[in-house]
Amino acid sequence: MIEIFTTGGTIDKVYFDAKSNFQIGESPIQDLLIEANLTIDVKVTEVMRKDSLDMTDEDRAQIRRAIEASGSTQVVITHGTDTMVQTGRALKGIAGKTLVLTGAMQPARFRATDALFNVASALTAAQTLPPGVYIAMNGQIFDPQNTIKNVEENRFELRK
Amino acid sequence: MIEIFTTGGTIDKVYFDAKSNFQIGESPIQDLLIEANLTIDVKVTEVMRKDSLDMTDEDRAQIRRAIEASGSTQVVITHGTDTMVQTGRALKGIAGKTLVLTGAMQPARFRATDALFNVASALTAAQTLPPGVYIAMNGQIFDPQNTIKNVEENRFELRK
Amino acid sequence: MIEIFTTGGTIDKVYFDAKSNFQIGESPIQDLLIEANLTIDVKVTEVMRKDSLDMTDEDRAQIRRAIEASGSTQVVITHGTDTMVQTGRALKGIAGKTLVLTGAMQPARFRATDALFNVASALTAAQTLPPGVYIAMNGQIFDPQNTIKNVEENRFELRK
Amino acid sequence: MIEIFTTGGTIDKVYFDAKSNFQIGESPIQDLLIEANLTIDVKVTEVMRKDSLDMTDEDRAQIRRAIEASGSTQVVITHGTDTMVQTGRALKGIAGKTLVLTGAMQPARFRATDALFNVASALTAAQTLPPGVYIAMNGQIFDPQNTIKNVEENRFELRK
Repeated sequence: MIEIFTTGGTIDKVYFDAKSNFQIGESPIQDLLIEANLTIDVKVTEVMRKDSLDMTDEDRAQIRRAIEASGSTQVVITHGTDTMVQTGRALKGIAGKTLVLTGAMQPARFRATDALFNVASALTAAQTLPPGVYIAMNGQIFDPQNTIKNVEENRFELRK
Repeated sequence: MIEIFTTGGTIDKVYFDAKSNFQIGESPIQDLLIEANLTIDVKVTEVMRKDSLDMTDEDRAQIRRAIEASGSTQVVITHGTDTMVQTGRALKGIAGKTLVLTGAMQPARFRATDALFNVASALTAAQTLPPGVYIAMNGQIFDPQNTIKNVEENRFELRK
Repeated sequence: MIEIFTTGGTIDKVYFDAKSNFQIGESPIQDLLIEANLTIDVKVTEVMRKDSLDMTDEDRAQIRRAIEASGSTQVVITHGTDTMVQTGRALKGIAGKTLVLTGAMQPARFRATDALFNVASALTAAQTLPPGVYIAMNGQIFDPQNTIKNVEENRFELRK
Repeated sequence: MIEIFTTGGTIDKVYFDAKSNFQIGESPIQDLLIEANLTIDVKVTEVMRKDSLDMTDEDRAQIRRAIEASGSTQVVITHGTDTMVQTGRALKGIAGKTLVLTGAMQPARFRATDALFNVASALTAAQTLPPGVYIAMNGQIFDPQNTIKNVEENRFELRK
């Protein structure tokens, strides 16, 4: 069984017409996966609903505790992109588990979004990579230790 | 030929990851209509990109001038929902033209949105109704003179 | 209340991987309409699941009986495109009801399809047109008496 | 650079209204990947357009030659599901390349399809697995040597 922990971020954003704005809502990951017709067991659990710019050290400790408490050795964490790298570093050193962080540049509820691609990529990497912490975004697998989000280019890349 | 004037509103909202927010972008109406495989001529022209809460009397006068200058007698105006009724009233009295205002409660770029339904409804009403001003939203045709947006219920309804 | 009768046709086609082919399945109209967030009452009833090339005079009589038995004066009939015109003619003379036939050139379950546009158009025409029989396809309203399906061009048009 | 070779199958099926049937068309993979916003180079090349039930030994030899001639060591092959296992076996022994076969149970052009998930999974597996031949379907990675398609259940599984 692969465990998916959702923590918020762009991937989970919804639009509230009444307030004319965007907020982080219930994660649509579970629904997105229905059409993938999965033959593996996947369990989706919400840990928090946070914009990753608002994440604190205590939030990261909470995510770490959820992963450590999980019976699964293959874990995907959906997360805002702005501080995904920092959370990845804060999850270092959990023995025997393959952890893959992912998220999206466009909300999963959009017609055109990278969300499903990224989640599919993360679920695959969680099964094929050795224990450790990884980021799966837009087709590429990164090590949080040497990765940055290039905000201008809207992409993850190796730190030079 | 039916002319569609776009003015902004929720229907045209896009998500900018870099700024982590939603703004009114280029209208996706033209792209949405490709798959409708239309056998009628439709021309889409952007008049402005405004949240309808920010619309001024001068904006409404500009929309009115665009409609009056148009050679078409069947006109659809996409518009934010919050002040769609006011704009409808401001367009009263343009002789010989059927004007239909429409918009969306969820951005057209969402996977689940009322945008395409509403635009289809407006394009049909523009062809089947006599000259005058109408609102086509969520399956219903309204007269702006006796209609309000019920913000709490997120729907248009007759003013009691 | 608007009544929608489904009869089959391309609009309702599904794909069966096990048989590697396409068949007419349960109509997805009800699901499609959820995101339209309708403020009108719409009731969807399946009359049959037929490719319209296979429709017989008895099938058309059955559709007519369903419409006559309905308490609604505004009726939409989803139908295969190949013989939509013939069925339209067979429904002539039902007093006091506005009947609008519609369908799709691409199945409603496709990502790019004219189905939702056409259904929205038909639901609008059923409310705005006087009693009679109409076809609403790809943005245009037709009278079955003087319309043909141009198979090569994949469109409905006036008979010359 | 990852090379994607398309060979046909359900994933590439389109609907032809004029003939009222489904056929294998131009692969939509390139278009699907646009929204994934990839930061890796992916090249999509059509090798053939075949239902996999119609694939011959010569077809499989042709696919093998295309892979051997490719400068890429990471290759994804999209393929019909019915004989994906056989093609996987026929590709055994190509040194130094990670080959991942994938496809879909529902056409990629459908609104609800496993196509994008499967392609994302295959592109990830091609980067994370050692040289060899694999099948990536519905969240799972298989070895063609000990896998069957369970046609009744519409899924791949280990041969018992």
